[in-house]
Amino acid sequence: MSVPSLSAALIQHASVADVCANQASTEAGIRQAASQGAQLVLLQELHTSPYFCQTEQPDRFDLAHSIPGVHTDWLGALAAELKLVIVGSLFEKRAPGLYHNTAVVLERDGQLAGRYRKMHIPDDPGFYEKYYFTPGDLGFQPIQTSVGRLGVLVCWDQWFPEAARLMALAGADILLYPTAIGWDQQDSSDEQQRQFEAWQTIQRAHAIANGLPLLSCNRCGFEADPSGCSAGIQFWGGSFAAGPQGEMLAQASQEAAAVLMVELDLQRCEQVRRVWPFLRDRRIDAYEGLLQRFGV
Amino acid sequence: MSVPSLSAALIQHASVADVCANQASTEAGIRQAASQGAQLVLLQELHTSPYFCQTEQPDRFDLAHSIPGVHTDWLGALAAELKLVIVGSLFEKRAPGLYHNTAVVLERDGQLAGRYRKMHIPDDPGFYEKYYFTPGDLGFQPIQTSVGRLGVLVCWDQWFPEAARLMALAGADILLYPTAIGWDQQDSSDEQQRQFEAWQTIQRAHAIANGLPLLSCNRCGFEADPSGCSAGIQFWGGSFAAGPQGEMLAQASQEAAAVLMVELDLQRCEQVRRVWPFLRDRRIDAYEGLLQRFGV
Repeated sequence: MSVPSLSAALIQHASVADVCANQASTEAGIRQAASQGAQLVLLQELHTSPYFCQTEQPDRFDLAHSIPGVHTDWLGALAAELKLVIVGSLFEKRAPGLYHNTAVVLERDGQLAGRYRKMHIPDDPGFYEKYYFTPGDLGFQPIQTSVGRLGVLVCWDQWFPEAARLMALAGADILLYPTAIGWDQQDSSDEQQRQFEAWQTIQRAHAIANGLPLLSCNRCGFEADPSGCSAGIQFWGGSFAAGPQGEMLAQASQEAAAVLMVELDLQRCEQVRRVWPFLRDRRIDAYEGLLQRFGV
Repeated sequence: MSVPSLSAALIQHASVADVCANQASTEAGIRQAASQGAQLVLLQELHTSPYFCQTEQPDRFDLAHSIPGVHTDWLGALAAELKLVIVGSLFEKRAPGLYHNTAVVLERDGQLAGRYRKMHIPDDPGFYEKYYFTPGDLGFQPIQTSVGRLGVLVCWDQWFPEAARLMALAGADILLYPTAIGWDQQDSSDEQQRQFEAWQTIQRAHAIANGLPLLSCNRCGFEADPSGCSAGIQFWGGSFAAGPQGEMLAQASQEAAAVLMVELDLQRCEQVRRVWPFLRDRRIDAYEGLLQRFGV
């Protein structure tokens, strides 16, 4: 890797029904990040749209586009103009009836450096993603860029230590998560706090287990349930960056839009891995059970 | 499982050169826990001895005993007398020249319910465990007891999400870690804080990833380096219990001996797993790389 220290930015904002308005929010954030010296920008999950998975509606598939396509053209033009690497998150139309939740990486020359199709797909009340997204079929491969090998994963992947580990074993230099997670308004404040802390804790743990820095960018703001069946979702923002010991480097507000800047010391990772050489000691002779659904 | 709610105790104390004195500290803690209603007791790693791995000395193998043997007889008698399940951690002599770092589980009738041989063995300055302990060869199998299936792991295992996952997939009801970890006196206080938080964070994450409660029992107190080559280890105590969302249920002092009592609501685990059904969505078709050392 060519960059020992890296200036990264996470763009967190609320989303509305109007795609152009969301693109304007994103673009304003990217331009601000560039003016502050960002070399790498991470966007939130499905940043061009509201979180449409609150309901199952066939017409919502109209939000999907081919990759490459209009949305990667837009991000690529920004990347080239501002000379930075952008990690975006799009609703990919692969074929009629075949859609993915896909992260894209645009190189600083505007080229599409690679894509990652979300491998773990959630489905629970208010998050009906199994209706919209076919599970990814590209595996866990970091994307090579001028700022390092980016281990890009998406949202629900963040609950699976396997995903982070596989990215690390494939040579990732940084773990990155575009995400869209929030509170059920009907949960108690204690339950809401446990959920937020669990979300942050498990991602910090991926940084620790793999000796890698981690960036997680989440949307904020309230989005009503179009069906009126639920009380909607209060997306909890709180985008953050952690270092390779899981230490918090920066954290955004839980409510407000933010351009969260963070400086990553990529040389520190090797020092941390020398002190805690976990990769040396993995018992690969005894991990076959990880390929099983359940052992009992 | 027969017990919806479970009263557990973690016995944390400093250790000295005299094995009998350490056994007295442990036994006093177990008796206190029993008097407070404990049904399950977790002891710290290698609780009968000082942390002898600070140096490599052939005569230290004299601390090892067969299992079953004198130390399991002692723990079994206590378990039977006090009618509780004890998870201990012993230096196992399997054959001359073949030793393990082994956790043992004594049933409330005093019988040896099972053992776990530490699978991941550390080795770094002051923690020369690869000299003393052959890596375990029993895999990751929970031990069936009257208080549930105990997923017992040991210390360095706590840094490996694979170990916790395998115990969960094999049906564990609780994750338990006897441990012996502390600070290098020469590290800065910032580094010490990062290490302690990382240790706690990654274990809380195992609870979250697997929807299981977790108990971690660590020794406390300072132990000098017999060789005089280092400044010794300040074991950081801080034994704790976390619930299935990684929420902290109880935490002991970082300095003082403690009998840390905690009530585990074992019925809650299923509720948590319904809300966050991670086991449903694991991509076992795409995890083969976990059996590789490194993929690049």
